[in-house]
Amino acid sequence: MRVVVPFAAETPKTRLDDVLDADERDGFALAMLRDVLDAVRDAGEEPEVLATAPVSVDAPVTVDDRALTPAVNAVLEESGGEATATGKMEPVAVVMADLALATPEALGRLFDAGGDVVVAPGRGGGTNALVVREPAFRVDYHGASYLDHRRAARDVGAEVTVVDSHRLATDVDTRADLVEVLLHGGGRARAWLETAGFELAVTEGRVGIARR
Amino acid sequence: MRVVVPFAAETPKTRLDDVLDADERDGFALAMLRDVLDAVRDAGEEPEVLATAPVSVDAPVTVDDRALTPAVNAVLEESGGEATATGKMEPVAVVMADLALATPEALGRLFDAGGDVVVAPGRGGGTNALVVREPAFRVDYHGASYLDHRRAARDVGAEVTVVDSHRLATDVDTRADLVEVLLHGGGRARAWLETAGFELAVTEGRVGIARR
Repeated sequence: MRVVVPFAAETPKTRLDDVLDADERDGFALAMLRDVLDAVRDAGEEPEVLATAPVSVDAPVTVDDRALTPAVNAVLEESGGEATATGKMEPVAVVMADLALATPEALGRLFDAGGDVVVAPGRGGGTNALVVREPAFRVDYHGASYLDHRRAARDVGAEVTVVDSHRLATDVDTRADLVEVLLHGGGRARAWLETAGFELAVTEGRVGIARR
Repeated sequence: MRVVVPFAAETPKTRLDDVLDADERDGFALAMLRDVLDAVRDAGEEPEVLATAPVSVDAPVTVDDRALTPAVNAVLEESGGEATATGKMEPVAVVMADLALATPEALGRLFDAGGDVVVAPGRGGGTNALVVREPAFRVDYHGASYLDHRRAARDVGAEVTVVDSHRLATDVDTRADLVEVLLHGGGRARAWLETAGFELAVTEGRVGIARR
């Protein structure tokens, strides 16, 4: 299985601009990416990074400065194109780089799930992780991509499996998502937040974050 | 296994007051409760409701007007008390009434998980569902109860298992949670929202809700 981790190397995580400055967002995004690469490896696969610009990580990096959808579809086309002779393709997994809660167990459930297209929905209707075994399937990450991907799979006659995981549903985009990293994360991303002074703060029975 | 579904029958779901009026919140909360009861039954268990006031549902209802924590602990004490002679207790599951995404499969993973205390964390650090097999364990739902429950379990020597489920992590409290019901829900709660005129609305690539 190919495991591709797309990474927006330039100005990542802009929706965290209320809590992190631009350099911090760079550092935190890189910490999350490295955690995801570790989790993929610990789940028994070799990750490759698909980045919009060069990035220094311990994995092969392909630079493609296009938007997420065409860049991922180029990978699917490449892997699916090789399949046309045999009718089969090497499965391609696409795992987002901001899944700071991803564990080898959660990714293992994704990789091991049956189905031509396996989807781990993100909170809010996105697609946080995918496995594609159907050469005709293409992605479209705009909008409610979870529903669109189910529809696209149906349109090419592909059977869909959905992975029900809070860890994989949690892409870290906003301040509220940092709470999840401090609650459930275990790697560099959590350590990064702690070093930067973040901690859980319980106010009126609700859990938020505070920064020292 | 006893499966207890606590239900705040009076003024439920106040954090939805920006999108639903008081009568609507009552109706929507009841729709979610009934969905949860169905899902518990379809997972092979017989649910009982622990409500702050009488409520009309197709399941036995115990009225206890205390706060959630003492009311649930009274149930645990009752079930655990019977255990002191034998050292074992009938497992008690506590499943929140606002888990509108709960499916028999997701609840089955909870009920079937090993461990003296099984926790399904809610987004934001709450405890959305629990299974208790350790008579000395007590709940405290205030604040970051997921962390507190792990600590409380450790304190009584109980082994903890965590269930990683987006469906069980999604308690429906706020407007953003309604998006999840429209994306992933399938029962009365989703039908209630649709009848009330709610639909998904994609704006600038992000998914929200709109009301006709």
